[in-house]
Amino acid sequence: MSRPGLFISFEGIDGSGKSTQARLLAEALRAQGREVVLTREPGGSPGAEEIRKLVLTGERDRWSAETELLLFTAARRDHLERTIAPAIAAGQVVICDRFADSTRMYQGLSRGDLRAAVDQLHDLMIGREPDLTLLIDIDPATGLGRALSRGGDEERFESFGEGLQEKMRAGFLALAEEFSDRFVTIDGNRPLEDVAVDVAAVAGAHLS
Amino acid sequence: MSRPGLFISFEGIDGSGKSTQARLLAEALRAQGREVVLTREPGGSPGAEEIRKLVLTGERDRWSAETELLLFTAARRDHLERTIAPAIAAGQVVICDRFADSTRMYQGLSRGDLRAAVDQLHDLMIGREPDLTLLIDIDPATGLGRALSRGGDEERFESFGEGLQEKMRAGFLALAEEFSDRFVTIDGNRPLEDVAVDVAAVAGAHLS
Ligand SMILES: Nc1ncnc2c1ncn2[C@@H]1O[C@H](COP(=O)(O)OP(=O)(O)O)[C@@H](O)[C@H]1O
Ligand SMILES: Nc1ncnc2c1ncn2[C@@H]1O[C@H](COP(=O)(O)OP(=O)(O)O)[C@@H](O)[C@H]1O
Ligand SMILES: [Mg+2]
Ligand SMILES: [Mg+2]
Repeated sequence: MSRPGLFISFEGIDGSGKSTQARLLAEALRAQGREVVLTREPGGSPGAEEIRKLVLTGERDRWSAETELLLFTAARRDHLERTIAPAIAAGQVVICDRFADSTRMYQGLSRGDLRAAVDQLHDLMIGREPDLTLLIDIDPATGLGRALSRGGDEERFESFGEGLQEKMRAGFLALAEEFSDRFVTIDGNRPLEDVAVDVAAVAGAHLS
Repeated sequence: MSRPGLFISFEGIDGSGKSTQARLLAEALRAQGREVVLTREPGGSPGAEEIRKLVLTGERDRWSAETELLLFTAARRDHLERTIAPAIAAGQVVICDRFADSTRMYQGLSRGDLRAAVDQLHDLMIGREPDLTLLIDIDPATGLGRALSRGGDEERFESFGEGLQEKMRAGFLALAEEFSDRFVTIDGNRPLEDVAVDVAAVAGAHLS
């Protein structure tokens, strides 16, 4: 019999180390012989990447919070159907850099009070949560410093300053309590190798 | 005091004469001194037109019915916020070639049984119906002949044949009963000037 798949997401504020840890975990699991799909949101499938481009480029007020929420949900639906679900069904491990919890935070909390709409839309059109969500929790000042030093041109969600980062950090911690069955919070204020050891341990416990 | 705005939509199967009648009505109302915004879906605002391009080009199975529904709803939200609502608020007449009823038919009926999801999504993210919906009802064979002779390269929704056209016609007529407070059905199996006379009379009654 083949091994069951697992759907793992990474969440946390910008610069917390999600992308770094997702990559390190993928490498560690592949070294153990697991088949891993490393993916990210928004994006993660050809259609969703096109929607990502539409949302993340252009003027900041190009889309209202509601339209943006619909576009991200469309991208997530495509990503889930075309990339995530088939991989899980094939017994692979899907590691996703951000998933619906980021929408709960960014569209639900920071761009207006859309959390109720975010949840209803999710239940209606997505209806799937990760099996395990790793929240990399860090001090907002540290995260902002890391994110800014990294650069990149998709800065729309990353340039709103430390006040927002503080609010988002608290929001993610609240989400971890709300969905305590699947969230594990990991201290990201440490050298990345130390964080990676904890990440691998938690993921390993879910895979064995 | 300024005159109140009015939101009119045209619905019907492909080739029924929606675009033709929408244009003729706009001309007639402008000749009477009304300010008219003639628009269409999917599209009708810069953002929505970009989403339209994303949905209507490419392979037929590029998007699932659910993803397509989300993209059309995103486009509609943008169209409503940026084009329709401001015009109505300014006392103008908005004439829209297709609106949410087309989604109820095409995504709700023909691409799967998504009608319940279509309605919930509409209530959640759109929440607005036209004041008046003119259903141009025609014989499917006539409509198909007209649509094919017209040509164009956005054929994804128009090349599914007469069986679908028959189903859609029945669906639109059922919708007209369901929303009988705003639907008026007009016989489109006549010379376009005759159809236009009826359209102008119905719209005129709503404007006076
Ligand atoms: N634990 C860590 N300590 C120091 N720097 C880190 C750590 N984790 C990540 N970084 C660096 O910080 C920057 C942001 O990390 P990244 O993984 O891109 O964060 P996120 O994806 O959460 O925004 C990158 O340049 C990365 O190399
Ligand atoms: N009443 C009519 N009689 C004959 N041809 C018509 C009539 N109404 C429209 N047409 C023609 O049929 C074709 C389809 O009309 P159109 O307005 O584009 O339909 P729709 O927008 O509903 O698909 C066009 O070439 C148009 O000129
Ligand atoms: Mg990242
Ligand atoms: Mg038309």
